[in-house]
Amino acid sequence: MSAQPIIWQTLAQDEGARAGILRTRRATIETPVFMPVGTLGSVKGVRFEALETELDARIILANTYHLYLRPGVELIRACGGLHRFIGWERAMLTDSGGFQVWSLSGLRRVTEEGVEFRSHIDGSQCFLSPEIAMEAQAALGAEIVMAFDECPPGKSSLEEARRSMELTLRWAQRSRRRFLELQREGADAGRTQEQDLLSGAQAQFGIVQGAIHLDLRRESLARTVEIGFEGYALGGLSVGEEKGAMYEVLAEIAPLMPADRPRYLMGVGTPEDLLEAVAHGIDMFDCVLPTRTARNGLAWTSRGRLNVKNARWARDTKPLDEECACAVCRRHSRAYLRHLYLAGEMLAAILLTHHNLFFFLDTMRRVRQSIRSGCFSRFRQEFLERFNAGLD
Amino acid sequence: MSAQPIIWQTLAQDEGARAGILRTRRATIETPVFMPVGTLGSVKGVRFEALETELDARIILANTYHLYLRPGVELIRACGGLHRFIGWERAMLTDSGGFQVWSLSGLRRVTEEGVEFRSHIDGSQCFLSPEIAMEAQAALGAEIVMAFDECPPGKSSLEEARRSMELTLRWAQRSRRRFLELQREGADAGRTQEQDLLSGAQAQFGIVQGAIHLDLRRESLARTVEIGFEGYALGGLSVGEEKGAMYEVLAEIAPLMPADRPRYLMGVGTPEDLLEAVAHGIDMFDCVLPTRTARNGLAWTSRGRLNVKNARWARDTKPLDEECACAVCRRHSRAYLRHLYLAGEMLAAILLTHHNLFFFLDTMRRVRQSIRSGCFSRFRQEFLERFNAGLD
Ligand SMILES: [Zn+2]
Ligand SMILES: [Zn+2]
Repeated sequence: MSAQPIIWQTLAQDEGARAGILRTRRATIETPVFMPVGTLGSVKGVRFEALETELDARIILANTYHLYLRPGVELIRACGGLHRFIGWERAMLTDSGGFQVWSLSGLRRVTEEGVEFRSHIDGSQCFLSPEIAMEAQAALGAEIVMAFDECPPGKSSLEEARRSMELTLRWAQRSRRRFLELQREGADAGRTQEQDLLSGAQAQFGIVQGAIHLDLRRESLARTVEIGFEGYALGGLSVGEEKGAMYEVLAEIAPLMPADRPRYLMGVGTPEDLLEAVAHGIDMFDCVLPTRTARNGLAWTSRGRLNVKNARWARDTKPLDEECACAVCRRHSRAYLRHLYLAGEMLAAILLTHHNLFFFLDTMRRVRQSIRSGCFSRFRQEFLERFNAGLD
Repeated sequence: MSAQPIIWQTLAQDEGARAGILRTRRATIETPVFMPVGTLGSVKGVRFEALETELDARIILANTYHLYLRPGVELIRACGGLHRFIGWERAMLTDSGGFQVWSLSGLRRVTEEGVEFRSHIDGSQCFLSPEIAMEAQAALGAEIVMAFDECPPGKSSLEEARRSMELTLRWAQRSRRRFLELQREGADAGRTQEQDLLSGAQAQFGIVQGAIHLDLRRESLARTVEIGFEGYALGGLSVGEEKGAMYEVLAEIAPLMPADRPRYLMGVGTPEDLLEAVAHGIDMFDCVLPTRTARNGLAWTSRGRLNVKNARWARDTKPLDEECACAVCRRHSRAYLRHLYLAGEMLAAILLTHHNLFFFLDTMRRVRQSIRSGCFSRFRQEFLERFNAGLD
């Protein structure tokens, strides 16, 4: 067997759920894994030291769309690639920009060639195509890069969804071709020495689309696998469709994804969603939920969500979550966090973000453990019972 | 000798400069010391873990005025005092509110009894007097509390400055009387057990006023010392007067302050100001400069000030300060910090604040070392030469 960009191995299987090890050139990652989102090369409000030591995040996500607009990928390449630019030596995954063009930019025009759009920052005219997105991701140099896709709205009709899926498949082919060229050309800024069975190159994931139409999803999966990627992602979920429809796609499609490759559910979701997806064999997740809601004063706890603004906590000296072992819960009270939030102190967002990421990453740690011990479904049931029981 | 609230001992004297040890009931502090400002019970953008371990701050400052308005001192008392409320077990000093009433609130009316003012938050009518300020500071329970003073503008005429100084002296007497009563009544929320020669009680500092009028300053000092406090502060400097006038007050008044008590220069200042004040025997400082300027994109370095917004740093992979040992300078580049700042990422303020506080605290560490080695004036000269030489 020749050296590979990434190596994924199953450690344990518990009904549909699986625990594994994903080896990349920069970090070894236990799965299922939650990847904190570092859109612009920074997980908002968290120092890298905390990500490394207290949170033990092994892989974070960055966005090609955002970095392409600001500060620009050429600048990042000139600074030695994204790892060196931001000062993070563990693994990264970059999204291709397809989703962000769809969700953030104004006045899109999609052609066979790519997408013309206006920057959400200054309104300037920009263009992304499968080739440009792959060139940008090579300049960034993350361990895992994503194919360039089109993300149709969650409620797309069968016809719209098919047209979009066909385009995404053609773009997947072009993404793969350009990706492989760039690897041969040595464009990957994050390249490392070959070591053990790892080649030191980037890995690329294909993205399965098809909205909520199961036949399209199956076809999208089969034809994406035919192109051949190092891993596969489910895109276009949690984008406006009913929750039941998303769960149906997970139940029907996730188990069909190649068993020997990592399976990544993009942009999802709540703790409940993560557990549902893990039950169907998903290995990787990213979501802005824990970080974005933290900045709005929301803590995720073992007893559900806690809104720090609530007057109920004004004199409450208990921690956010009495069962949480994070530094915030060991030191600070709900009363203090409420005070910080109401006073507009930056520390409120910093501490809530830290706690929320700890909660999400710690939950995944417990998920992995339960799969290895063969008791995932009991863990899941108990977790959800407590989570839905509410706060004292 | 009976147990005292604080004990201050000189370790070394180098011309006018002095190095010492300030023992408080919660932390032992080497002086000269710079106290980070935690106005609302949070040093903006810095987790307490970083203050403790990476920055090794032994004492921080909080503001009675701000905490009185929000969340209110009764709430803090109900949560066990300020240390327990914010989760900080080292030493604290609380300002009395006199300065903030003067600098922040609108529509003040000063009477013999105290100051009526409008809250800068919601415009509501508030009142502070020496007695109320002491009661608030007892409820907060810091190691060192300040007398309630009036702070006249830096350019006050002799007549205005005298009237104000006389009022401050009468308020100092009332502050002392009420402070001692509160200690006897057990109102101090931060009280600890007696230990060694420390009584476990709060200490109180008197404030010398008199604007730039040296005769007034001398008189204010003598009459404040007559009342008798555990330490003495110079107030009303860096409030609009010429820098030369401030330096003259320092040169003339600081050496006259009781040699066996800590000397505190309030709200000052730049590294140059700190060195000037140390040369005249000042032991304690606080200033928002390193933290506030950080949030505006300014780094303080051994080579002077660095504005991270500057296009010059766009591709500069050097750290903010090549001679700085802080975690930010060990990991991140000017280019990255500029990117974070321009992108509006919270991490810019977090990292710049961390670096700036490290720089101020590390400079004071080196100041102390130079005094103990008897080479403060050479250290100061070399520091200022490098500081004024500018960046590469
Ligand atoms: Zn926690
Ligand atoms: Zn530094």
